[in-house]
Amino acid sequence: MPHKSGRHFLQIPGPSNVPDRVLRAIDNPTMDHRGPDFGVFSQGILHDLRKIFKTRGPVIIYPASGTGAWEAALVNTLSPGDQVLMSETGQFATLWCDLANKLGFEPLFMEGDWRHGAPADAIEAKLRDDKNHSIKAVCVVHNETSTGVVSNVANVRRAMDAANHPALLFADTISSLGSVDFEHDQWQVDVTISCSQKGLMLPPGLSFNAISDKALAAAKSNSYARSYWDWQAMLANNASGFYPYTPSTNLLYGLREALDMLLEEGLDNVFRRHDRYAEATRRAVQAWGLEVLCKNPDEYSSVLTAVLVPDGQDADHLRAVILDAFDMSLGTGLGKVKGKVFRIGHLGDFNDLTLMGTLSGVEMGLSLADIPHQKGGVDQAMAYLTETAGRT
Amino acid sequence: MPHKSGRHFLQIPGPSNVPDRVLRAIDNPTMDHRGPDFGVFSQGILHDLRKIFKTRGPVIIYPASGTGAWEAALVNTLSPGDQVLMSETGQFATLWCDLANKLGFEPLFMEGDWRHGAPADAIEAKLRDDKNHSIKAVCVVHNETSTGVVSNVANVRRAMDAANHPALLFADTISSLGSVDFEHDQWQVDVTISCSQKGLMLPPGLSFNAISDKALAAAKSNSYARSYWDWQAMLANNASGFYPYTPSTNLLYGLREALDMLLEEGLDNVFRRHDRYAEATRRAVQAWGLEVLCKNPDEYSSVLTAVLVPDGQDADHLRAVILDAFDMSLGTGLGKVKGKVFRIGHLGDFNDLTLMGTLSGVEMGLSLADIPHQKGGVDQAMAYLTETAGRT
Amino acid sequence: MPHKSGRHFLQIPGPSNVPDRVLRAIDNPTMDHRGPDFGVFSQGILHDLRKIFKTRGPVIIYPASGTGAWEAALVNTLSPGDQVLMSETGQFATLWCDLANKLGFEPLFMEGDWRHGAPADAIEAKLRDDKNHSIKAVCVVHNETSTGVVSNVANVRRAMDAANHPALLFADTISSLGSVDFEHDQWQVDVTISCSQKGLMLPPGLSFNAISDKALAAAKSNSYARSYWDWQAMLANNASGFYPYTPSTNLLYGLREALDMLLEEGLDNVFRRHDRYAEATRRAVQAWGLEVLCKNPDEYSSVLTAVLVPDGQDADHLRAVILDAFDMSLGTGLGKVKGKVFRIGHLGDFNDLTLMGTLSGVEMGLSLADIPHQKGGVDQAMAYLTETAGRT
Amino acid sequence: MPHKSGRHFLQIPGPSNVPDRVLRAIDNPTMDHRGPDFGVFSQGILHDLRKIFKTRGPVIIYPASGTGAWEAALVNTLSPGDQVLMSETGQFATLWCDLANKLGFEPLFMEGDWRHGAPADAIEAKLRDDKNHSIKAVCVVHNETSTGVVSNVANVRRAMDAANHPALLFADTISSLGSVDFEHDQWQVDVTISCSQKGLMLPPGLSFNAISDKALAAAKSNSYARSYWDWQAMLANNASGFYPYTPSTNLLYGLREALDMLLEEGLDNVFRRHDRYAEATRRAVQAWGLEVLCKNPDEYSSVLTAVLVPDGQDADHLRAVILDAFDMSLGTGLGKVKGKVFRIGHLGDFNDLTLMGTLSGVEMGLSLADIPHQKGGVDQAMAYLTETAGRT
Repeated sequence: MPHKSGRHFLQIPGPSNVPDRVLRAIDNPTMDHRGPDFGVFSQGILHDLRKIFKTRGPVIIYPASGTGAWEAALVNTLSPGDQVLMSETGQFATLWCDLANKLGFEPLFMEGDWRHGAPADAIEAKLRDDKNHSIKAVCVVHNETSTGVVSNVANVRRAMDAANHPALLFADTISSLGSVDFEHDQWQVDVTISCSQKGLMLPPGLSFNAISDKALAAAKSNSYARSYWDWQAMLANNASGFYPYTPSTNLLYGLREALDMLLEEGLDNVFRRHDRYAEATRRAVQAWGLEVLCKNPDEYSSVLTAVLVPDGQDADHLRAVILDAFDMSLGTGLGKVKGKVFRIGHLGDFNDLTLMGTLSGVEMGLSLADIPHQKGGVDQAMAYLTETAGRT
Repeated sequence: MPHKSGRHFLQIPGPSNVPDRVLRAIDNPTMDHRGPDFGVFSQGILHDLRKIFKTRGPVIIYPASGTGAWEAALVNTLSPGDQVLMSETGQFATLWCDLANKLGFEPLFMEGDWRHGAPADAIEAKLRDDKNHSIKAVCVVHNETSTGVVSNVANVRRAMDAANHPALLFADTISSLGSVDFEHDQWQVDVTISCSQKGLMLPPGLSFNAISDKALAAAKSNSYARSYWDWQAMLANNASGFYPYTPSTNLLYGLREALDMLLEEGLDNVFRRHDRYAEATRRAVQAWGLEVLCKNPDEYSSVLTAVLVPDGQDADHLRAVILDAFDMSLGTGLGKVKGKVFRIGHLGDFNDLTLMGTLSGVEMGLSLADIPHQKGGVDQAMAYLTETAGRT
Repeated sequence: MPHKSGRHFLQIPGPSNVPDRVLRAIDNPTMDHRGPDFGVFSQGILHDLRKIFKTRGPVIIYPASGTGAWEAALVNTLSPGDQVLMSETGQFATLWCDLANKLGFEPLFMEGDWRHGAPADAIEAKLRDDKNHSIKAVCVVHNETSTGVVSNVANVRRAMDAANHPALLFADTISSLGSVDFEHDQWQVDVTISCSQKGLMLPPGLSFNAISDKALAAAKSNSYARSYWDWQAMLANNASGFYPYTPSTNLLYGLREALDMLLEEGLDNVFRRHDRYAEATRRAVQAWGLEVLCKNPDEYSSVLTAVLVPDGQDADHLRAVILDAFDMSLGTGLGKVKGKVFRIGHLGDFNDLTLMGTLSGVEMGLSLADIPHQKGGVDQAMAYLTETAGRT
Repeated sequence: MPHKSGRHFLQIPGPSNVPDRVLRAIDNPTMDHRGPDFGVFSQGILHDLRKIFKTRGPVIIYPASGTGAWEAALVNTLSPGDQVLMSETGQFATLWCDLANKLGFEPLFMEGDWRHGAPADAIEAKLRDDKNHSIKAVCVVHNETSTGVVSNVANVRRAMDAANHPALLFADTISSLGSVDFEHDQWQVDVTISCSQKGLMLPPGLSFNAISDKALAAAKSNSYARSYWDWQAMLANNASGFYPYTPSTNLLYGLREALDMLLEEGLDNVFRRHDRYAEATRRAVQAWGLEVLCKNPDEYSSVLTAVLVPDGQDADHLRAVILDAFDMSLGTGLGKVKGKVFRIGHLGDFNDLTLMGTLSGVEMGLSLADIPHQKGGVDQAMAYLTETAGRT
C-alpha cells in the first residue's frame, strides 16, 4: 500500500504508542533464557516491577495477553464453583465475568450503567448478606477501558473490611498501571492483574499478577487444575531469575527499558502528566458540546476519555472518517455502547503537542463527519495546557 | 558489564538466532489490532502459516509460550480424567506428561531410554489392548529437544490406523517446525503444537495449534472448562483476521517476515540446509570420539545434536568453559541426562561459517575443559561441507 | 537526562523527521561496497535518483554534507578567479558566496532584502552588461531555507537565454528537492546541488550534484585542482555502481527506502502535500496577526514558513520557551534576521495532525512568551485542513 | 533475491562488522544539530575521541569518507606546489600520492615493494638531502590496508628529528585507529587522518583529523584555498559542540556508542585482541603453506593479513568461490598485487568463533577453488586460540 506520510496517531486506549527506546530494546538479539546473564537481568526486572505495583510481594510475568492474567488470578486461588462478586462497570468487567463463567466459577454480576465505577456500598451490602462466606473473591476493574471510568479500589477494600468479609480482592489494572496511581499493598489488594501494552508503553504480549500473602496462602489450598498459569513453579524459578517455561525474552528487554523510563520520570510525575492530558481533553469535549460517558467527576479516567456522540449519530462512522482523513486510530465503543461512544486514549508515551494533534483530529473529524458540535475544543485545550505548561 | 567483542553464538536448540530482518520487523510501531489494516495483515499471516504446517485447516496463534500450546491442545479436545498415551522420549515428553497430570488428565507414560523416538509398534500394542477406547489421545514429541531424537510421526499414525483406534493424534513440533519436514494433513495429525523461537527464527512469545476436522469436532463436545486457550472464539475472530483478545502485535510483524523468508528459500531447501549441518556436526562428534545420544540413525535430529561426554566428565562444566572462553551458549543436559550431555543447536538462521565457528568452539572447549577426546572434528566437518558446498 | 515523554517535534526546516522505514533501513549491517551485490544495489539508486531531480543525466552522490555539493559544483566547472553571479536571497546564498570567495572565485553578489527570490530581470541586466562573458556561472538558491522564499529558476534560465549569455546555471535545491517541484532538464540547469536531510527524509550525510552535458564539458577543460569532489572518477566508477572511495553505505540503504517512498506516493502528490501544509501554516500566521517574511505570494515556500515577531520581541526567546515547554525545535533566524524571525518547517515525513501539533505549539508558545498576537491561528489551519481533507 | 540463511561474514579489512549497539544507536531519530542538547552531546564525543587518538589536542570530525581527511590534512597546512615526501607502501600510499598530485602539490614518492613499511632510514636520508627544506610534510600510512604492513611511525618521527628537518608529519591511521596502538602526541604526529568504518566499528561516512599545535600554526599561514575542509571554522564551532555545516548526526550517535564500547573494553585490551587474532591467522596461513605478503614480522598488521596465492593462481577467483559458497567477503588484491593476494580482515567487532568461521571459510575455499595448499590451518589457529584463551 502506498506510503502514508508521517506517523500514525495511535490514540486508542492501548496498545499505546511504544517509545523508540523500548522498540530499540526489543530488537536486540534473543539471549539464552537459561544462561547466567539472563538470571541477573531478569532479577533486576522482577525487583523493579514491584515499584510500579507498589508492593513488596512477588509479581509474576506471563508470556501472555492481559486476558491470561485474569484467568491466572482466578485459577490460582479459587476452586471450581466458587462464587465471585463482580460489578458491571463496562465491557471488560463483562468479559471477565464471561471468563469466570467459562472456567466454571459462579460470578455474581452486579448490574451497572457503564457510566460509574464499582459501587463500594452495594458491594458492602452484598458481602454482609453473604453470611456463610460463599463469595470467595471480589473483582474490580480499576480503570474500565471501555468507559473511561475509574473505580475506587481503596473504597472497595474499606467496604470489604467494614463487612468483615474474608473474600479476596482482585483488581484489574490492565489499563491503569503506570498511568493512574495504584497501591497494591496499601489498598490490600490480593491479586493485581495487569499487562504490558498500556501505561507500561510496551507492545502487547506480557501480563502480570501481583500477589499478596493471603492470595499465596489460598493458592496452596485451592483445587483448580492448572499448569501454564500456576504460580508455584513461577515463583520457585523466579527466585533465581528464571522461568519454568520460555519467557518472552525480547519483550522483557523492552520491559527493562520501560521500567527505567517510568522510574527516571518518577511515578508521581507520570500520573500528573496523565491527569493534565485528561483534563485538557475533557475541556475540549465540553467545548464541543459533547458528553463524557463517565458521570462522576471523581471517577474520571486519566487514561482515556469516552465521548458520547449525539443521538442518531454513529461514533464508528466518525472513527472511520478520522482514520481515513487524518490517519488516527481512536477506540471504538464496545458492547452496550457500540456506535454511541468513541474513546480517546491519552496515555503512555505522549506529550502536549501530540495531544493537540489528537484533539485537532477529533475536532476536524467532527466537522467532516457532520456530527453536530461547537468549535472551540482545541482552543480550550490549548488554554489549559498553556496555563499549566511545565507543571509535569 | 564490559563490552564483549563480536556476536554471541547462541547455539542452544532454541531460541535460535533471530535474523536481522525479523528483529527489524519486530521493532515497528505497534498498530491498532482492531483496525482495518490489521485485519488484512493478519489474514495474510494466517493463510501463509498453513503452508509451514502443510495443512489446509486452521492454525491458531496464541500470545504464549509453546507450553501454552501443549495445554491448549489438551483442554480443547479432552475431558477431565481422559487417558492420553505418551512416550517418554525425553525431558519435554516428561514435562508434557506432568502438565497433563496437573490438568487432571490421566497420562499413560510409556517408559523410554531417552535415546530413541516414540515406538510405533509399542503404541500400536497399547492401543490394541485398549478395547474400550479409554485412550483419547496419543501424544508424540516430533523432535525431542532434550535428546536430538526425531520420532516418526507417520509411523505412529500408521500404528494407530493399524490398531483401528479412534484416539486423536497430537504432535509437538516445537523444535522441528520450519527445520525438519512435518506434514500435518498428510500424516493425519489432529493437533500440531508449535512455537515461534526455533525453526521460525522468532523470539519466544507465540505458539500454535494446527487443528484437524476431527479435533474441531472433539472440541465441540468435550467438557473441559477453558477460556484463554479456547479455539472457538479464536476461530470465529480469526475469520476476519482478528483476535478475541489482544494479540502479540509486534511478534506478528516478525512472523510475517519469517514466513516470507522461509517461503522465499523454499521449505525443501530449508530442510536440506538443516540436514547438511546436522551431518557435518555428527561427523565432528564422531571424529572427537564422542557419542551422539541418539542411537538410531533414522532418528537423528537435524535441529540439534546431543553429545555424551565421557563417564566422569561434567558436560555443564564444559558448557561453562565454552561460554566463558568463547562466548557461545550450548544447550544443557536436561532431567535424566543432566551433566551427561551437551546439546549443539544447528537450526534456524545459520550458515556454513557459523557452524564452523560453533564446532571450533566445541573442539577448543573440549581441550580447555580437559575432556578426553581426539582432534579432527572440525576437519571432518570442513571436509563434508566442502564436498557438499552449494548443495542447499 | 530524564525521559521526556512522547516524540520530539523536529520542526526545523531540515533535518526533517526521518520516517521509521528509513531509520530501519539505515541500521542494516554494512556491506562490502566493492562486492557484486553492492554494484546492483547502487545502480538502482543512481537510476531512480534521476527521477527525483527530473533529469536523464547523471547524479553524483557524495558522502558529505550539502555544503560539500556547493563546493563540488564550483570546483568541477570553473577556474580560479572566475566570476560567478549570485543573488543575496538570504543566509544560504550569503554562505555560498563566502564559500566561492574562500575557494578563490569572484562572486558578484547582487544585494537583496531577504524577503524576495533571485530577481530574474536584474540577472538579465547583469548578464547583458557582461559583454566579454567574464561571468562563468549564475548561482541561484531555489528554496532559501533561511527565509522561506522560493526563487523562480525557470525565469532565471529564461533571463539567461534572453541575454544570450553562455554562463552555467547552478541551482541549490538543498531544501526544495523532494518537497517542491524542480526540473533539472526542463529548466536547463547545469548543476543542481542537493542533500539528504530535507525532502529526502534522510539523516544528513549525503549530498548530490545533478549534471548537464554542458557542465560535463566544462569539467573537462576547467583548471581547478580537485580530488574528493572530482566528477570524473565518480562517473567512471558509478557506471558499474561503484565509487572511487568508500561511500556512506548505510545512508545509501536509507536513500533506497526514501526513493521508494517518494515514488510510491508520487512526486506530484508529495508536492501537493507540502503546498497544503504551507497554506495552512500561513493562514495560522495571518490569524495570529504576524507577518510572513516572504513578501511575494508567488515565492512562498512550501517547505518552511519564516515568521517575523513584532518589533522589540526576541524570536529566539520564543523558540527557547517552546522547546522547553513543548519539546519542539523550530528554526532560528539566521544572519541578518537573527532574533527577528522563527522558522516553521513543514516538510518531509509529516501529516495533518503533526502539523496541528506544531501550530498548536507555536500558538501556545506565543502566549507563554508574551508575544503580542491574536488567537485563532490553529482554528484557521483546522478550517483549511478540513476543507481540503483527503486532497493529497 | 532469496534469503541467504545466517549472517554474512564481512571479513574485508573494513568496513568492519558494525555491532548491534552501534546500529541501534544510528537509527535513533535525527535531532536538531543547532539545539542545546546537541551541543552537550557533541562536546562529549569530541572530548572522548581524543582518548582514541591519544592526544590532548583537537580532533575534527568531517561528514566525509577517509579520503576527504587525507585532502583536509594537506589543504589546511600546505601551499600549492609544496613538496611532500611519501613512501610507496602500497595502494593507499599510492592513492594519497595521486591525490596530492591532483591537488597541486609535489609528492616525492619513494618506491617500495609493497611488502615493507615506510623506511625510516631512507626518509632520514631524503630529509638530510633537503637542505633548503623544500619538503613541507612527510606522509606515512600507519597500517597499509592493501598489504597488511604497519609502518613504524615513531621511527619516522625519530628519523625526522635526527635529520633536524622542520617538515610536518602526517599519519594515515584509516585502518589502524582503534585496532593497533597509535600515539598522536607521544609520536609528535602533526596531522593524523582516520575514519569511522574500521577499528571504530561504524559504517563509513565520518573521517577525522587530529591536529598538533605545529599543524595549527601552519594552517594560519598556508595559502591553499579551502572551505569544506577548513579547520578554522570547524574549531571555532566545535568549541561549543557545534559545526559550521550540518554534521552527520546519526553517525555521531553511533560514534558515541563506539567510543563507549572501546573505552569500556580498554584500548590495551582492544589491541591485544587484535594481535591475538592476527597471530592465529598467520599460523593458519603458514600451515596452509601460503605466504604472508608482509615480509618483516615487526611490521605484521593486526588488522588484516594479506595472503599471496601460489603463482598462476587467481586470488579473485578464490574470493568469488568463497563468496558464492560461504557468503563471506574477503578483501581483493589492489593495484600492483591485483589477483595475487587476498586479504583477511580480522578487525573490529570480532571474536574467537567468528575468526574460526572466517579461517574455515578460507581453508574450505582453497579446496573448492583448487588452490594448492596443505590442510591444517584451522587446526593451528585453534591450537593458538586455545593456548591463549581468556587472555584478552
